Amino acid sequence: MPTTLAEFESVWPRIVADIEGHVKNYKLPQQSLDWLIKQLNYNTVGGKCNRGMSVVDTSSLLRNKTLDPASEDYFRAALLGWMIELLQAFFLVSDDIMDSSKTRRGSPCWYLVPNVGMVAINDAFMLESSIYLLLKKHFRQEKSYIDMVELFHEVTLQTELGQMCDLLTAPEDHVDLDNFSLEKFSFIVIFKTAYYSFYLPVALALHFCGFATERNLQTALDILIPMGEYFQAQDDYLDAFADPETLGKIGTDIQDNKCSWLINQALRKVNPEQRKILEENYGVKSSETEAKVKALYHELKLAEFYEQWEEERVADLKTKISKVDESEGLKKEVFEAFLKKIYKRSK
Amino acid sequence: MPTTLAEFESVWPRIVADIEGHVKNYKLPQQSLDWLIKQLNYNTVGGKCNRGMSVVDTSSLLRNKTLDPASEDYFRAALLGWMIELLQAFFLVSDDIMDSSKTRRGSPCWYLVPNVGMVAINDAFMLESSIYLLLKKHFRQEKSYIDMVELFHEVTLQTELGQMCDLLTAPEDHVDLDNFSLEKFSFIVIFKTAYYSFYLPVALALHFCGFATERNLQTALDILIPMGEYFQAQDDYLDAFADPETLGKIGTDIQDNKCSWLINQALRKVNPEQRKILEENYGVKSSETEAKVKALYHELKLAEFYEQWEEERVADLKTKISKVDESEGLKKEVFEAFLKKIYKRSK
Repeated sequence: MPTTLAEFESVWPRIVADIEGHVKNYKLPQQSLDWLIKQLNYNTVGGKCNRGMSVVDTSSLLRNKTLDPASEDYFRAALLGWMIELLQAFFLVSDDIMDSSKTRRGSPCWYLVPNVGMVAINDAFMLESSIYLLLKKHFRQEKSYIDMVELFHEVTLQTELGQMCDLLTAPEDHVDLDNFSLEKFSFIVIFKTAYYSFYLPVALALHFCGFATERNLQTALDILIPMGEYFQAQDDYLDAFADPETLGKIGTDIQDNKCSWLINQALRKVNPEQRKILEENYGVKSSETEAKVKALYHELKLAEFYEQWEEERVADLKTKISKVDESEGLKKEVFEAFLKKIYKRSK
Repeated sequence: MPTTLAEFESVWPRIVADIEGHVKNYKLPQQSLDWLIKQLNYNTVGGKCNRGMSVVDTSSLLRNKTLDPASEDYFRAALLGWMIELLQAFFLVSDDIMDSSKTRRGSPCWYLVPNVGMVAINDAFMLESSIYLLLKKHFRQEKSYIDMVELFHEVTLQTELGQMCDLLTAPEDHVDLDNFSLEKFSFIVIFKTAYYSFYLPVALALHFCGFATERNLQTALDILIPMGEYFQAQDDYLDAFADPETLGKIGTDIQDNKCSWLINQALRKVNPEQRKILEENYGVKSSETEAKVKALYHELKLAEFYEQWEEERVADLKTKISKVDESEGLKKEVFEAFLKKIYKRSK
């Protein structure tokens, strides 16, 4: 049985208490302590927690028993999950500043909350630092401790490299389609998203359950990185082709000059006149130009192309999953559970 | 013989090559690689490198022989020193954004360089991530590896907490002298500056030389944290009282509403009328109001008070140094060298 958001969130107050306890040792002035607790809650809680919860669910599958939400085992798996949520919060708080975003999870972005502003940058840093404080407090005695610390370091750097490449490839204010390519698309989605969203939860669960052999970690990587790539291509497809009513938001990738899967596939298919349409209309902040790009996407039959491509990718992933060697404790079900959540989703 | 800046800087290209080698394994696109190298150089090199060089000098003192700049030992001690410089670069790049600073080390702040902007936030993250990449590459096999990783984590969090307290206590745009106190002054300078500038270099040198016993680390902390506090009080004194010609800059603490040693001492000495002068003139962006605050500082004889306070602090530090237990490899000279650089400095 997968865990619920309510169960997962019930662990959070204990985590805040741990962080509070740690900084109280430093005799942090009260005003600063209040600020820290406020920003921790504002920025970490309130999302869907898919990444965090998948550490718990993967651990349940690996151990062949549902972790009891009242148990210490559940707490520790959820704690590792919350560290991914803290890592994501660190990235989102700063990404929102870099992208001049306005809202996040239905509330104003943290840097736009009155009296916050650029202080949000330092707040983001403290979200990241909390990860290592928690790892040290709860996992220092484990033999996988340093491996988990290094895993967070590496995934953090990978995500930063992906963000750098994305910012350089697709600045919102300067359109240059020559700068796009499917290779860059892949680099960006793998580094910016797939490592921390797909690989990290499973790698942490493997460490938690004592199954983090080199082989299992490599298998997880070989399946989850292409799965993350597929997930992002699907996200880009939904951005242009899904019903906004069902999707729950209105896609903005075309106007925002995103280096998306669709634009990169389009660039491979266009003739010179069609390319000119893209040059003139992509990344322009207007619904007329956006409509022209979408019309071209239809003309190029990109939706149909995506749907066929998706079937191939999923077939590929299923083959890989069927070949998973379970002799060192890994389970096919772990990957089946991930794939089931993604395939044919409409939002 | 203390090391020179030229010797210390000669190590830097090898560090850049290490980082470059690591990200090349990820097949980072060329444009991103070029950006990474450019920002690493722009933000890390060009300072006085006092913190970084003191790892080398402290190691030479602890080992009782000057490290040969051509040796692998020198490289490794300097590498640890450059990690402090990377940590500082991470803080400075982001502090400059948070403080809306204009220049740093005589050049425009990184976020003000054309085409950089808020991308600088992600660049700051990569400066921090480089530390752990280098630690792993060069120190993974050492028994002190995890201790050094945890040391960087802890000092990073401490510096962030100091920065948070500073930003909340003394926002540039909102003056509230009730918010100041000598306790907050101490918290801010110890956490924001003393840990990473004074304790970290010596703690790293102790780890490097194999003398990082619990006792030696505690002794280093007991001497270097008050020394860092004294250093910052002196900095604040120089900001108001030193000849700008000698100091090499014009002090701006009064206009910038800084929670400095001087204003906190003044607040303890004022009568109600004098307090009113501070309320009306501190943190105001004008040279007239600044002159009024300075006149009050003179009236309160703060310069003389500082000079006497300094003698007491230095006497205290000298007593502590004289009592250092050298039986576990620590040396009094380490602290004498630090103190010598600070006492009676004029810039």
